[in-house]
Amino acid sequence: MRGERFEGVLNLVDKTDAAWVHRVSPHMDQVLVDHAHCEKKAAGAAVKLLFSYPHHRFIQAPLAQLAREELTHFEQILAVLDQRGIVYRSLPPSPYGGKLHALVRRDEPQRALDVMLVSALIEARSCERMRALSLYLPDRQLADVYRGLLAEEARHHGVYLALARQLADPEIVRTRFAELADEESQILRARAPFPRLHT
Amino acid sequence: MRGERFEGVLNLVDKTDAAWVHRVSPHMDQVLVDHAHCEKKAAGAAVKLLFSYPHHRFIQAPLAQLAREELTHFEQILAVLDQRGIVYRSLPPSPYGGKLHALVRRDEPQRALDVMLVSALIEARSCERMRALSLYLPDRQLADVYRGLLAEEARHHGVYLALARQLADPEIVRTRFAELADEESQILRARAPFPRLHT
Repeated sequence: MRGERFEGVLNLVDKTDAAWVHRVSPHMDQVLVDHAHCEKKAAGAAVKLLFSYPHHRFIQAPLAQLAREELTHFEQILAVLDQRGIVYRSLPPSPYGGKLHALVRRDEPQRALDVMLVSALIEARSCERMRALSLYLPDRQLADVYRGLLAEEARHHGVYLALARQLADPEIVRTRFAELADEESQILRARAPFPRLHT
Repeated sequence: MRGERFEGVLNLVDKTDAAWVHRVSPHMDQVLVDHAHCEKKAAGAAVKLLFSYPHHRFIQAPLAQLAREELTHFEQILAVLDQRGIVYRSLPPSPYGGKLHALVRRDEPQRALDVMLVSALIEARSCERMRALSLYLPDRQLADVYRGLLAEEARHHGVYLALARQLADPEIVRTRFAELADEESQILRARAPFPRLHT
């Protein structure tokens, strides 16, 4: 019941189940390195928005705080890699992020709205995946690491949605978010050829 | 005496004196907005290095922490702007940063070394300017804001120098830093046409 409420809040079309965790859990070395890159990319994306939209004063402080939290998570995952003797290295990313960002419309003001909504979806999916890892990973020490990240990650989805609601009317936000959430689930169904956080 | 030691540690060729503060203090509205952009740019530059050099594992955690601290300062200066009813907006930047970055050599491994040393110089100068503002600003409330930022800003100069020393031999670092520090002071002597943190 708590789990259902949690997932409902994230507004995702498809749900991640224990089977996904069982599929990636033998490859947690790769998933952890990918996760470190995801936290770095999440921070980079938020910082980039500070530069792209200096005239949207209302996004500055929330996204600066969000970027700080992602950087803290990046540092935490780097520490986990070190503890486990896993080398932090470049990895071919899941096509997920690139495919989602390709859906962002080119012209303003649609572009800003789409970026916020795509970011909200990526945050929601990341959070949902981390929750699944925290629940079902056989490695309970690692499960605890993921549990520790959940509160902030769950907040980030809401931060982007709240910013989107300041950029457009509620009905426009709802309709576009539903479209993008559908696309997000379709993108995820075409599984990446390697174990990643978004496969 | 304490001031001299402080400035010696920053390794700058030219020193900022009270006259600079007197010159910019009537324009603190602009200097504060510029300062907010400088903190944002400092965070952005550090995050960019995480992406440029994923194979330099040793820079990841220190620069993630540095970026977080710059983002906190960005949020603090935004709050000061709000308190004072100053609108956060785009401003033509001082040519200082662009001119310094133009000195970075194009090819690796010189590029990475130069980026670290230029970043060290910008951090040192920013810190020295903030210290001057904390000492000589007639607006003592604002002087206290600058005093509050000093400890972390002073540390950042050393973070970049320490990373530079992991990229090249001590003699190479010393020689190149001295060259760039000379250039930095010359760039600063050609004053920007408007009041900025680096004019």
